[in-house]
Amino acid sequence: MHNSGSTMQSHVVDITTEVPEVPEVPEAHPVAPPPKQSTLQRLKIWIKETFFSDDPLRQFRGQPLQRKLILGAQYVFPILEWAPKYNLKLLKSDLISGITIASLAIPQGISYAKLANLPPILGLYSSFVPPLVYVVLGSSKDLGVGPVSIASLVMGSMLQDEVSPIEDPDLFLKLALTSTFFAGLFQAALGILRLGFIIDFLSKAILLGFMAGSAVIVSLQQLKSLLGIKHFTKKMAIIPWSWQTIVMGISFLVILLLARQVSIKKPKLFWISAGAPLVCVIISTILAFAIKAQHHGISIIGKLPKGVNPASTDKLIFNGSHLGLVIKTGFITGILSLTEGIAVGRTFAALRNYKVDGNKEMMAIGLMNVVGCTTSCYITTGSFSRSAVNNSAGAKTAMSNVIMSLAVLVTLLFLMPLFHYTPNVILGAIIITAVIGLIDIPAAYLLWKIDKFDFLVMLVAFFGVIFISVQYGLAMAVGLSILKVLLQITRPKTVMLGRIPGTDIYRDLYHYKEAARVPGFLILRIEAPINFANITYLHERILRWIEEVEENLMKDFSLQFVVLEMSAVSTVDSSGVSLFKDLNTALEHKGLALVNPLAEVLVKLKKADEGHKKIREDYLFVTVGEAVASLSSTLKAPTVGEEVQETVVE
Amino acid sequence: MHNSGSTMQSHVVDITTEVPEVPEVPEAHPVAPPPKQSTLQRLKIWIKETFFSDDPLRQFRGQPLQRKLILGAQYVFPILEWAPKYNLKLLKSDLISGITIASLAIPQGISYAKLANLPPILGLYSSFVPPLVYVVLGSSKDLGVGPVSIASLVMGSMLQDEVSPIEDPDLFLKLALTSTFFAGLFQAALGILRLGFIIDFLSKAILLGFMAGSAVIVSLQQLKSLLGIKHFTKKMAIIPWSWQTIVMGISFLVILLLARQVSIKKPKLFWISAGAPLVCVIISTILAFAIKAQHHGISIIGKLPKGVNPASTDKLIFNGSHLGLVIKTGFITGILSLTEGIAVGRTFAALRNYKVDGNKEMMAIGLMNVVGCTTSCYITTGSFSRSAVNNSAGAKTAMSNVIMSLAVLVTLLFLMPLFHYTPNVILGAIIITAVIGLIDIPAAYLLWKIDKFDFLVMLVAFFGVIFISVQYGLAMAVGLSILKVLLQITRPKTVMLGRIPGTDIYRDLYHYKEAARVPGFLILRIEAPINFANITYLHERILRWIEEVEENLMKDFSLQFVVLEMSAVSTVDSSGVSLFKDLNTALEHKGLALVNPLAEVLVKLKKADEGHKKIREDYLFVTVGEAVASLSSTLKAPTVGEEVQETVVE
Repeated sequence: MHNSGSTMQSHVVDITTEVPEVPEVPEAHPVAPPPKQSTLQRLKIWIKETFFSDDPLRQFRGQPLQRKLILGAQYVFPILEWAPKYNLKLLKSDLISGITIASLAIPQGISYAKLANLPPILGLYSSFVPPLVYVVLGSSKDLGVGPVSIASLVMGSMLQDEVSPIEDPDLFLKLALTSTFFAGLFQAALGILRLGFIIDFLSKAILLGFMAGSAVIVSLQQLKSLLGIKHFTKKMAIIPWSWQTIVMGISFLVILLLARQVSIKKPKLFWISAGAPLVCVIISTILAFAIKAQHHGISIIGKLPKGVNPASTDKLIFNGSHLGLVIKTGFITGILSLTEGIAVGRTFAALRNYKVDGNKEMMAIGLMNVVGCTTSCYITTGSFSRSAVNNSAGAKTAMSNVIMSLAVLVTLLFLMPLFHYTPNVILGAIIITAVIGLIDIPAAYLLWKIDKFDFLVMLVAFFGVIFISVQYGLAMAVGLSILKVLLQITRPKTVMLGRIPGTDIYRDLYHYKEAARVPGFLILRIEAPINFANITYLHERILRWIEEVEENLMKDFSLQFVVLEMSAVSTVDSSGVSLFKDLNTALEHKGLALVNPLAEVLVKLKKADEGHKKIREDYLFVTVGEAVASLSSTLKAPTVGEEVQETVVE
Repeated sequence: MHNSGSTMQSHVVDITTEVPEVPEVPEAHPVAPPPKQSTLQRLKIWIKETFFSDDPLRQFRGQPLQRKLILGAQYVFPILEWAPKYNLKLLKSDLISGITIASLAIPQGISYAKLANLPPILGLYSSFVPPLVYVVLGSSKDLGVGPVSIASLVMGSMLQDEVSPIEDPDLFLKLALTSTFFAGLFQAALGILRLGFIIDFLSKAILLGFMAGSAVIVSLQQLKSLLGIKHFTKKMAIIPWSWQTIVMGISFLVILLLARQVSIKKPKLFWISAGAPLVCVIISTILAFAIKAQHHGISIIGKLPKGVNPASTDKLIFNGSHLGLVIKTGFITGILSLTEGIAVGRTFAALRNYKVDGNKEMMAIGLMNVVGCTTSCYITTGSFSRSAVNNSAGAKTAMSNVIMSLAVLVTLLFLMPLFHYTPNVILGAIIITAVIGLIDIPAAYLLWKIDKFDFLVMLVAFFGVIFISVQYGLAMAVGLSILKVLLQITRPKTVMLGRIPGTDIYRDLYHYKEAARVPGFLILRIEAPINFANITYLHERILRWIEEVEENLMKDFSLQFVVLEMSAVSTVDSSGVSLFKDLNTALEHKGLALVNPLAEVLVKLKKADEGHKKIREDYLFVTVGEAVASLSSTLKAPTVGEEVQETVVE
């Protein structure tokens, strides 16, 4: 038949000088059935690969009990891993970075709380307690924890649909805290149930569109603050506005944007953009105090309560007409903030070459929010801007979060009166500067270049968020992404293979121009699992390939074997197995050979074939080369020896 | 490097005696980029493969205009294909089969109309007009058209939720006809928009469970008719029932079931089960007339209107509070009847080796229902039982439907008074006999054997339909099927490959026990498209493979190359390409080689890599063998020549 076995050994010669055993003229290799597994075994493997793919218990195996307990405690509280080894040198680094992020966190906190339509003080509360919780439970060394713009915006706008933050600020606050509770619950549940892959459905394309859309909304919203307008109304023109506010707003916006540009151009100068918000707050506050801003129509923050976070368990409401709203808001903000937190954690972990356990992070962020909502904190997560600054400032451990937290504590206890004169307009400028960074044109262009469909998904998210709503925009984009995946399954590619001359390698005729068809054979590769959703299509498409080859495209009147290359068919279901039965019936006068059916596929085909004997053992091959070699010997007259007439597809 | 090119040629020797050109020591084959395509070209190909995969215009190409027109007319009206060639011999066959199915259709029609809570006469109307429409438009030669049990049951039970057929029979009839209109519209739209793949989502597993569940419901329902009980109530015990009804019902049920068994055992005696219902109707009617049934508590059909289908356009209502219901009912019954019609059409087409165009069939069935609803017909489709009898009785063309239709016409015009005394109980017996055939225990067992998850889907459909409702039962089962497909995408398999000794073939180490690892290499096959939903998983899983190989499982301290076999990665999206960037970063001190990236994947990888230069051209290979051969030469000291120490995975 053929003798590749002995000749192919030449490959091996490269890595070993001894050839152990060379069979003289080996037969085609039999397609072995895989080892038997019981249903229970398969279920176990499936559960492990699906839900415990990271094998979290691996480190415990074979350890003595005491060590197991220590590892267990460290698993639950990652702080136990690094705290014992903590030293003064590390503290020095963490102190610097902690103070740096505090200087960013304080103005950001106040601004984002305003973005969420909440009292500014909430932003400071949320920068005090959650970081302390994260330090104990989190496994990232770089994550800077606190309120973030996206989650703040989404929470603010979703709750606003039902309750006005101006007319009923108390109820609004209660709903925000309750939403935070549900967000935390949901986040922790995802981690505990190991369903973290749900956040993967918010693909980069979706986030890109969503963040840009949010940035547009937020920027427009903040314009009113910047222009000193309280509410956009149809009568806007007759509302009195102050040129002083506009001048101040624009000036500081320009300063902040310039600072941002400098840090983008020279990453070493990261502290310029990190410190700029606080400097702007200080300068604008002094300015406002000096010129008595309120007399010039510049609105100021006003009196802020002094003291640490008050308990807020009494503010959580689990009944009433708004329960649906808070659950929905919790779900969406929970997912969004989780996505940001996990992505940021992973990014910096990859940069510094340590590992972050996704499921553990979800539990940490979830618990942080559950604890947070009982101490007057609204939703928090790992913030990209804080983490970047934290990392750039040289943070070594999560201790920098503690330092930041302490700095916020000092502010809460002693410095609150200083913010009395801070102009609201400066907060708008800080927010705009933050969200403008969310619009990533080069990434959108790359998307267009690589995958047009992903670009479309991005556009749907972008316009959906702007013109419909956050939740529908996201839902539409996710739906479209899933539809694409389903379409790929429903319409799998089938590709005709040919031989690369002078080898035994069979590849896509269209892709490898030098490849050539083997007359008498139609070799197709099926590029998807075969299941209920695509058997009809595959059946029709394969028959059309045969017709095309026989009729016009290839003018091969002697087609005798259809060879299906199944390496890419990762699985079949109970409908999928019927495809082969149907094809066997349709190809009565031709041979149907299967090449390299994978373990699972082979098992199912054999089970389904019991009693029918439709699948011929001798028509199963390990490689296309062996299939062609073996079947060629049975080819009828006209094609044998015609290889010179090989036709190439155009 | 290697010399497989020359040696592998030995395969070719089997089909050609001349070796055209033998390069002496060829290099590894370069991974060629595929020919360039513009976005527009790719869009065109995508649309063609997705929506016009059957290439319906192929037959028109290169034909003269006149021929094109004829082909076009035949395409729209398949009757033009066979009618000109029709002859007396064909007519003889069709006449016999037409009359045979009429004898089945008349009692079935009356029974199924009752199942849909509609007046029995509707069943006869629906067996008269729709077959005539189908004859003109349909492309199946075997399809027997008329009302079917599943769609009748579903329509009856869905409409009953809002309107009582007993209290307001007129409104109920109007809703049924309007639902039929929407069903037809929806069916035709699916065909025109070429979205026929939607019905593929009702997999065999779902239909199996759904039909069995429906059969249970219907059988229970019909028991009341069989036992002479008008309504199941809590006071059932005190409702007077007649033993005569019970005796008659049970007797005829036994006769019908016996007739069915005979035809199953001996397929040649198909006419016994085909004729049994009519015979039973005749005997029971005579009996009822003779013993004056109404005096014995046996309920009879009563007076039926004489004459052909009255127009019913005035009965279609497109406003009012029930619009949502009729659209929903139309959608579900439309999909279900389409599924049955298409499946039956395809089954018999495959048996007799002709082709049925799915999209055209959808238009035909859809138009049939749209026309039907204007002539007092409720939903119809290709019925399995009628088609089977039609085929067995030797039907040659769709003309047998015309014969059946004429027989029904004669019945409507002249024989209606004969049904006056037909006992209702006989209809119950006919229905039970029909639906019992829907319970397919061996198929369920096969499902269990082949795919446990499909079995679960079947159970969900079964219990969902019985205990919740038709629409939720179906939705849950479809949702579960889609979830499974999504889980396969989210958690793709990665498999470690090893070399089959004495060859250059690399296969799953677990599946092929004789395969052995190549020290220094980790060769992984990724078995799914790489996209947003699985990059995180794949990244983690690949790193875990590396850890396992280095740490304990394989004790390979010299791992230097990770080779990813990408034959099964049919596509990547914009998120997918980042996996390779991330892996390259994570595997800084190891080499990452890609084997056989498919055309689309290669293009996207290169586009994403522009400017980064992370993907090394010399780390792309056409086969694993060539990758190993080529990279082995760069392996560092300890592993070279150690092949004898190959470790095999247990």
